[in-house]
Amino acid sequence: MSDNIRLALMRQALALYDATDDGATVAACHLQAAVDAEQGLRPMQPGEDIDPEIPEQLRNWLS
Amino acid sequence: MSDNIRLALMRQALALYDATDDGATVAACHLQAAVDAEQGLRPMQPGEDIDPEIPEQLRNWLS
Repeated sequence: MSDNIRLALMRQALALYDATDDGATVAACHLQAAVDAEQGLRPMQPGEDIDPEIPEQLRNWLS
Repeated sequence: MSDNIRLALMRQALALYDATDDGATVAACHLQAAVDAEQGLRPMQPGEDIDPEIPEQLRNWLS
């Protein structure tokens, strides 16, 4: 239960970073790592492929 | 303004980690780093001294 609450709090904070264009700050990157770790996500491993949709989404987001 | 809100959200989440004895998990450590970075705190530098009260507090906390 408190797992869900702390994840929700972190996601709200992360959304605020993104909303204020601070999504690439050191603090936001640490926070993203915390959200990933809370969900048991690992860093990308050798041999794994990047989802081809992600670079496309990034391009759209940056243009 | 939103700086304060995101810091407050992260501190609430961190308090939940501590309250559930998850304060030393990977996620909590990343979250602590995010809180520190948001406040402009740096990692300890060569030549800096640890506050002598901190080991004492740790000892009390562990005993």
